[in-house]
Amino acid sequence: MNEFETIARLFLPLTRGEPGAFGLGDDAAVLSPRPGFDLVLTKDAIVAGVHFFPDDPPETIGAKLMRVNLSDLAAKGAVPRAFLLAAAFPPDAGPGWAPAFAAGIGADLEAFGGALIGGDTVSTRGPAFFSLTAIGEVPAGTMIRRRGARAGDLVCVSGTIGDAALHVARKLRGRAVRGEAHLAARYLKPEPRLALGQALRGIAHAACDISDGLVADLGHLCTQSGVRAVIEAGLVPLSPAAAASIAADPALVETVLTGGDDYELVFALPPEADVAALAAVTPVTVIGRFEPGQGVELRDPSGLPLQLTRTGWQHPVGRDEAGA
Amino acid sequence: MNEFETIARLFLPLTRGEPGAFGLGDDAAVLSPRPGFDLVLTKDAIVAGVHFFPDDPPETIGAKLMRVNLSDLAAKGAVPRAFLLAAAFPPDAGPGWAPAFAAGIGADLEAFGGALIGGDTVSTRGPAFFSLTAIGEVPAGTMIRRRGARAGDLVCVSGTIGDAALHVARKLRGRAVRGEAHLAARYLKPEPRLALGQALRGIAHAACDISDGLVADLGHLCTQSGVRAVIEAGLVPLSPAAAASIAADPALVETVLTGGDDYELVFALPPEADVAALAAVTPVTVIGRFEPGQGVELRDPSGLPLQLTRTGWQHPVGRDEAGA
Repeated sequence: MNEFETIARLFLPLTRGEPGAFGLGDDAAVLSPRPGFDLVLTKDAIVAGVHFFPDDPPETIGAKLMRVNLSDLAAKGAVPRAFLLAAAFPPDAGPGWAPAFAAGIGADLEAFGGALIGGDTVSTRGPAFFSLTAIGEVPAGTMIRRRGARAGDLVCVSGTIGDAALHVARKLRGRAVRGEAHLAARYLKPEPRLALGQALRGIAHAACDISDGLVADLGHLCTQSGVRAVIEAGLVPLSPAAAASIAADPALVETVLTGGDDYELVFALPPEADVAALAAVTPVTVIGRFEPGQGVELRDPSGLPLQLTRTGWQHPVGRDEAGA
Repeated sequence: MNEFETIARLFLPLTRGEPGAFGLGDDAAVLSPRPGFDLVLTKDAIVAGVHFFPDDPPETIGAKLMRVNLSDLAAKGAVPRAFLLAAAFPPDAGPGWAPAFAAGIGADLEAFGGALIGGDTVSTRGPAFFSLTAIGEVPAGTMIRRRGARAGDLVCVSGTIGDAALHVARKLRGRAVRGEAHLAARYLKPEPRLALGQALRGIAHAACDISDGLVADLGHLCTQSGVRAVIEAGLVPLSPAAAASIAADPALVETVLTGGDDYELVFALPPEADVAALAAVTPVTVIGRFEPGQGVELRDPSGLPLQLTRTGWQHPVGRDEAGA
């Protein structure tokens, strides 16, 4: 059995009995939504040295690949259904690498639902590269879009902001910080906000997940919706570890507001929405308002505009390159 | 506008008005099959230095990415409908590279149908890497599978075999051959046999496309179907350029039979099938028979078994690595 057959056998259990996967023996899968549902499709890729550190544990790289895509499904209000994987494993990976990577994917399929239905394994001399296509379902016509936020809507976010970016900043600078274990866990295994996304169907006017940083992704939502967002920086929810980091180095507030990899949701709620009911599902914080106009404005606690030297970067690990 | 926005704008025309693509502004697409149809999904990735030469023209790299996936849809009898692309462009690509690559994809969308509905563009320090998810449609329950060939069925192939592998062999050894332009064209822009695949629905007992070489892919079909294939090597259809190459160097017959990248279809027809009617759509040649048993046997014109030193390789450009 060659390397590729070994890997195919590794992925076979991840089909979890899905009949349309044909045991990965067919180079194609069959899928249709249940009657009355639409399929929602998204595709995100991750590259070693850009989206993850080459020395991150392979289990968490598998989990992260799942979660950056699950997070897109969450923002659309979708329920996970199927996944297709293209994998180029690191050329120097030991024999345990691919099994651990597959175990990370398998654990997330158990936790969040859906099945692997196809894919491709290739060789590369370059950095490890993984691309996942994630397919979810929503009741027909209910997918939440980026477009749709209105002046007067509340700007809301889930969870806490900036933890992953603080981990990256710490790792790149090599200085230990308080709460590092929490920050690292948030970077390695972000929490896809699927239950919240599903709860937002029919309520939120627009939503997206935060992969490129709060300011950048909210900016995309504003552009698509044709509105402006005004955020009170003091309201942005922070973990205790992030709050301690900023207390020690106030300049890190910029890392928190513009850093990537949060995989929280930012969304527009009509002012009459029952935020408390949503917060019973997942922590939700109102951080500002949408107004007529364009762009994202940050205000400090005294109400003055807060200037940032940058508005977000593509991905912190490789920012020297991705920002080119 | 940054590099990624420029590229996003480049891909926008490739949505070709598909409403579910939402102008690529939503990080997710919506898709459902027409009533009475199934979606067929496949995903193949290509890496510079493995699946294509880094100096191949970017238009043809875009076309090849499309065609290796279209070829999988063809083998299933599917009609192309939608595509999701993950792209890591070469770090040293000039400003014209991505537009030419996108033009190659766009021309194939025009020629073969379907629309780009989503994707992801990432940076890499390594070789260029492209992953495509292709989605087609078949009438519900009619997808042609690898499993299903029966003893007594005819082994059939479309087109001619071995042209692409001869181009790769020539390029790696640097020796000119007669008909090189034809061989190169077959490698750079293989012809997805979509019309034939659709004609095979309800007729062929099994099919797959030839990406890893005739012997290897027919072997997969045999394994899935639980039968053995006996091929008469002298019946394998050759282009004039391939025939001339083999006449000059008989050892190249092995390259032809086991080399990859043909993207022709190999399929099982019941003996009573009307091969001539199929051949009116696309050239089809009967090259042997399925029998009880397992494996693939090649016979020379005198009926004796033909021994090969290998049964196929993963992908010729990177065979030292992929075959490891």
